[in-house]
Amino acid sequence: MISFESDYVSGAHPEVLKRLVETNFESLPGYGDDKYTVSAREKIKTVIGKPEADVFFVSGGTQVNQLVISTLLDDGDGVVAVKSGHINVHESGAIEFTGHKVLAIDGKDGKIVPEKLSEYLESDYDDHMVRPGMLYISHPTEYGTIYSKKELCEIYGICKKHSIPLFIDGARLGYGLSCSKSDMDIKEIASMCDVFTIGGTKVGALCGEAAVFSGIRAPERFIAKIKQRGGLMAKGRVLGVQFDALFTDGLYFRISEHVAGMADMLRNGLIKLGVEFFVDSPTNQLFPVFDDSVIEKISGKVKYSFWEKAGHGRSVVRFATGWATEKEDIEELLTILNKVLKND
Amino acid sequence: MISFESDYVSGAHPEVLKRLVETNFESLPGYGDDKYTVSAREKIKTVIGKPEADVFFVSGGTQVNQLVISTLLDDGDGVVAVKSGHINVHESGAIEFTGHKVLAIDGKDGKIVPEKLSEYLESDYDDHMVRPGMLYISHPTEYGTIYSKKELCEIYGICKKHSIPLFIDGARLGYGLSCSKSDMDIKEIASMCDVFTIGGTKVGALCGEAAVFSGIRAPERFIAKIKQRGGLMAKGRVLGVQFDALFTDGLYFRISEHVAGMADMLRNGLIKLGVEFFVDSPTNQLFPVFDDSVIEKISGKVKYSFWEKAGHGRSVVRFATGWATEKEDIEELLTILNKVLKND
Amino acid sequence: MISFESDYVSGAHPEVLKRLVETNFESLPGYGDDKYTVSAREKIKTVIGKPEADVFFVSGGTQVNQLVISTLLDDGDGVVAVKSGHINVHESGAIEFTGHKVLAIDGKDGKIVPEKLSEYLESDYDDHMVRPGMLYISHPTEYGTIYSKKELCEIYGICKKHSIPLFIDGARLGYGLSCSKSDMDIKEIASMCDVFTIGGTKVGALCGEAAVFSGIRAPERFIAKIKQRGGLMAKGRVLGVQFDALFTDGLYFRISEHVAGMADMLRNGLIKLGVEFFVDSPTNQLFPVFDDSVIEKISGKVKYSFWEKAGHGRSVVRFATGWATEKEDIEELLTILNKVLKND
Amino acid sequence: MISFESDYVSGAHPEVLKRLVETNFESLPGYGDDKYTVSAREKIKTVIGKPEADVFFVSGGTQVNQLVISTLLDDGDGVVAVKSGHINVHESGAIEFTGHKVLAIDGKDGKIVPEKLSEYLESDYDDHMVRPGMLYISHPTEYGTIYSKKELCEIYGICKKHSIPLFIDGARLGYGLSCSKSDMDIKEIASMCDVFTIGGTKVGALCGEAAVFSGIRAPERFIAKIKQRGGLMAKGRVLGVQFDALFTDGLYFRISEHVAGMADMLRNGLIKLGVEFFVDSPTNQLFPVFDDSVIEKISGKVKYSFWEKAGHGRSVVRFATGWATEKEDIEELLTILNKVLKND
Repeated sequence: MISFESDYVSGAHPEVLKRLVETNFESLPGYGDDKYTVSAREKIKTVIGKPEADVFFVSGGTQVNQLVISTLLDDGDGVVAVKSGHINVHESGAIEFTGHKVLAIDGKDGKIVPEKLSEYLESDYDDHMVRPGMLYISHPTEYGTIYSKKELCEIYGICKKHSIPLFIDGARLGYGLSCSKSDMDIKEIASMCDVFTIGGTKVGALCGEAAVFSGIRAPERFIAKIKQRGGLMAKGRVLGVQFDALFTDGLYFRISEHVAGMADMLRNGLIKLGVEFFVDSPTNQLFPVFDDSVIEKISGKVKYSFWEKAGHGRSVVRFATGWATEKEDIEELLTILNKVLKND
Repeated sequence: MISFESDYVSGAHPEVLKRLVETNFESLPGYGDDKYTVSAREKIKTVIGKPEADVFFVSGGTQVNQLVISTLLDDGDGVVAVKSGHINVHESGAIEFTGHKVLAIDGKDGKIVPEKLSEYLESDYDDHMVRPGMLYISHPTEYGTIYSKKELCEIYGICKKHSIPLFIDGARLGYGLSCSKSDMDIKEIASMCDVFTIGGTKVGALCGEAAVFSGIRAPERFIAKIKQRGGLMAKGRVLGVQFDALFTDGLYFRISEHVAGMADMLRNGLIKLGVEFFVDSPTNQLFPVFDDSVIEKISGKVKYSFWEKAGHGRSVVRFATGWATEKEDIEELLTILNKVLKND
Repeated sequence: MISFESDYVSGAHPEVLKRLVETNFESLPGYGDDKYTVSAREKIKTVIGKPEADVFFVSGGTQVNQLVISTLLDDGDGVVAVKSGHINVHESGAIEFTGHKVLAIDGKDGKIVPEKLSEYLESDYDDHMVRPGMLYISHPTEYGTIYSKKELCEIYGICKKHSIPLFIDGARLGYGLSCSKSDMDIKEIASMCDVFTIGGTKVGALCGEAAVFSGIRAPERFIAKIKQRGGLMAKGRVLGVQFDALFTDGLYFRISEHVAGMADMLRNGLIKLGVEFFVDSPTNQLFPVFDDSVIEKISGKVKYSFWEKAGHGRSVVRFATGWATEKEDIEELLTILNKVLKND
Repeated sequence: MISFESDYVSGAHPEVLKRLVETNFESLPGYGDDKYTVSAREKIKTVIGKPEADVFFVSGGTQVNQLVISTLLDDGDGVVAVKSGHINVHESGAIEFTGHKVLAIDGKDGKIVPEKLSEYLESDYDDHMVRPGMLYISHPTEYGTIYSKKELCEIYGICKKHSIPLFIDGARLGYGLSCSKSDMDIKEIASMCDVFTIGGTKVGALCGEAAVFSGIRAPERFIAKIKQRGGLMAKGRVLGVQFDALFTDGLYFRISEHVAGMADMLRNGLIKLGVEFFVDSPTNQLFPVFDDSVIEKISGKVKYSFWEKAGHGRSVVRFATGWATEKEDIEELLTILNKVLKND
């Protein structure tokens, strides 16, 4: 059965896997002191054009968000995010678990609206209220949408004006940068925020996210803080080797471009079939709306993620492309849909 | 250079790696709902003889300790451990980070002394004191020592008498079970505690520890609790496939026996050379004491872990064997040592 | 200058103060083991008609909310509250500080809307989302509004259906029960929730709130949990004596009735002056809306709390009556307002 | 029955009570913005000779310790204390509850031994270990002993050398300063630490401790941090008025001198009776050792605190003097003891 369920259904990209296998028998120091971790760090600093950046690797997305947010925020301060933000909805309260409130504000299509952010940050708060201590955005967002350079620039300006760091959750960063609507590269991302993550798990790795402090220094004793939160891997090589592979010969971006191309092909095909979208996503996550009967009919043939009820007997599903998605998968999906929609 | 630095210097055991490669291109659901994770769980339940056990996989040792302890303890209760216990010394305060005190008591050779445990648990505590809410032991201990069946039975009895769960940190469980002095198998371990871990990272996996609730049920919504602590892997298959491999055809025990054999060979060799030991460890971690001049001389030729100063110009080092240790490595180490000790 | 700023601007009610003075020289055990604390507990259990209830005293409102919520919630679960709820807005993130998310939902006039609560509790949540573990309401609410018996009954039914406890923040409980629109007494409150607080600070005490577990038992070792959170007073008598006084000869209710009467007098006077209200509050907090010029003119003569901008050059202020408010104060306030409004 | 159980068995000192009564009917702003709190702050800054100090008031001793320690420590760092330190033994794990380890080291008679402190701070710690982030001492200690100026100076020097703040728990500070063996005044205390507390609860107040940041600035937004921890009192006047009274006409020191005088009288009387002491305490807590039969005989006549078993049928008890202790109480206690000891 073809799978468009998510972008983490396959293992590692072949080039990543190859490096894991090739280096497997080497004897390497633990806890991130191995040469591959060092090399991966350097490659990332080079590709983002920030030789002075601090780079760390941990295994998962919630882990890296929790780590960055809880170590950067002052005691009891909160992190501002849109209501649909991953940290507000889908991380089981991992931020609150570390003692900090997520200050959720209204967004649009998963994105921060600069005016609303300004308004929020300019409103008074006193000692009885949680102080906004940083801004969290995701790029692309949970709805697959992306910020334009102009928008990000404006948002970063607002953050600077209010002296709070801007943190970009880049769990799918590559897909945000490589989609046809993107007008930014990774250097620009690194320059328009204080800290961001480069997601490996959804972009070709078995696991692993990089925390990149590009605009500010990492909090003191960051490794100890990773350890305190249970996130320090004994065989740190697992993360180092994978990120070293992802940033060798532009693999991270090659994967991203392939995935973006597959998403474009699928999006165009769906548009041709007259499919309506819940949100206009330019990246690898598409949110078509179908009659429930259509969804029922494709269910045994295609894997998808159920998103939410749309009312009137219709529902939103998510189709995501990944590094392993091939042209043939798209064609098969479109053929199935064409047949079902025609007969419906 | 031959390496006896630790048991996490090599990648995955070939059989584990092979399974990672073979399954890499399969499309599998995330977050531990894949068939390999399911299979690994079942295999562990079978091998420990507890079909009703709850089994979970997370990526690291500190993570699993923090998770088990913080979810089992009542609000503000503490965990009893020996002063040398990993959670008390080498986990950067990960337990306290979750709000719980480590109630450290005197031990002997890294082990709990039943009499001292009883005495501690029988002493009065009032509402101004931290209540001991569970017992943590490691098997083997941080000094490579092991509990006998009789000792464990006695300790578990004390825990039961005081109605506190017994948690065994099995980061190196296989090495404790497979060493020549062991009089217990994994079924007995599972029957003489409430919850234990089976360490993968140090016994052939790239990463991964199993939390096995064999005597009590896992806390409700355990997956959500893993997520809250940042420990839930999107590609849960990474852990499932590895543990499935480790518990196929007894690989976990075959690795352990090889490592134990290598350790025996090394121990015997060191004894023949007249080397003194800091502690009498029957497992894969050996703690010889050398003159500092000896250590200096072997330093360019052998990798070891510096343990601590022993006074009188002498120091303790740690030699650890691992799945990749070969007979030839031991012979080379002994040859080097023989030469240095003779000339010293 | 007359003061309507809040209901915590005066010290203790004379009868409370008298008891503090009379008992001052007695030698009494600490930490709540004194006879007055015991007596206060018994009197509260009698007045609420729940001899089996568990009653505890702590010094402040945020403290008691934090304590009750964080000890009742399971690890990482959240507490549902309306967006305007005190715990969501005005407690500096005290709930999140203990690791729990406030799950804020839309309300009306500060109150939970049963339909919205049902809808929220019936929506699916998975292991990536925070589980709603209890409901928090305040009675009266932050806007001075109150629940009817029918509404509370319906809300408690929804909580029971979803097996979550209902917690009523009664920081101003007396004012909710004694106002003319109230159709409930304290026995009914105690029967239609699992745990509630009886605020002393705003109803005649110098400090002190009672946590009353009327529908469920208090969490085990509750005194130790108070201590862990820094809330256990060495001279527990301070709280015991005050609550004993408040529940002797119905003082708590006599104070409440006086305050309600004063609020009625003020409300009627304001209505006669044609003043518009931001919200229709039947209790001791009134929220009139005035032209900013009016507010400016009364500013040197009356103390009030600025609430929020109402647009069009108008603002909301809060007038609160308290135990020390006298008829003459109301008359003076109305006279001042009359003069200013007439000339405006 | 005469009471030597503790120094918190009586209410407020008459002069403190008088001020509470006198100011009771004034209308004052809440949350510490009242004029008495402001005045109390200024008086403390004057008496310690530090006009630039930051002073805050909270209700209890565990609360202030938890607050100061958890706001000053960096994320996950630990606080060094002697094993017998209040925060390590008798605060129900309040420090660990905020995520920080108490790094307990051996002391002597309740005091830090400078050599052991140096040795501890000079030992290596790595990213797997908790970093010592501050030193906590109590003066007087939990055993009633005090530091000499020379000792404190040496300890503060060690802290400065290692760049960690020194925090003095002064729950009974007055008794440490006013005892006959003291060679320091409060100005010297303030100059030889970074932050200290002035305990009110045990020195004449109903409740209340002052946190005085004399060597460093208080953490940013300290009031919000008090609120987050549930420690901010709505009627902050309760603390302000009491501390204002305590620091008017030297009341704090007059109380302390009276209590010290009573303790001297009792100590001398006990020595004359040939009583043995568990520890040589120069302050208001005395720790005599008696045969259990003696203790049994005085039990109906005198209130004392049982401290611990001393072996050989003997036990340690604590006698504490307080502001309400009179010469006649001491005489009665000594008469009772004399009779019992003679007949024993």
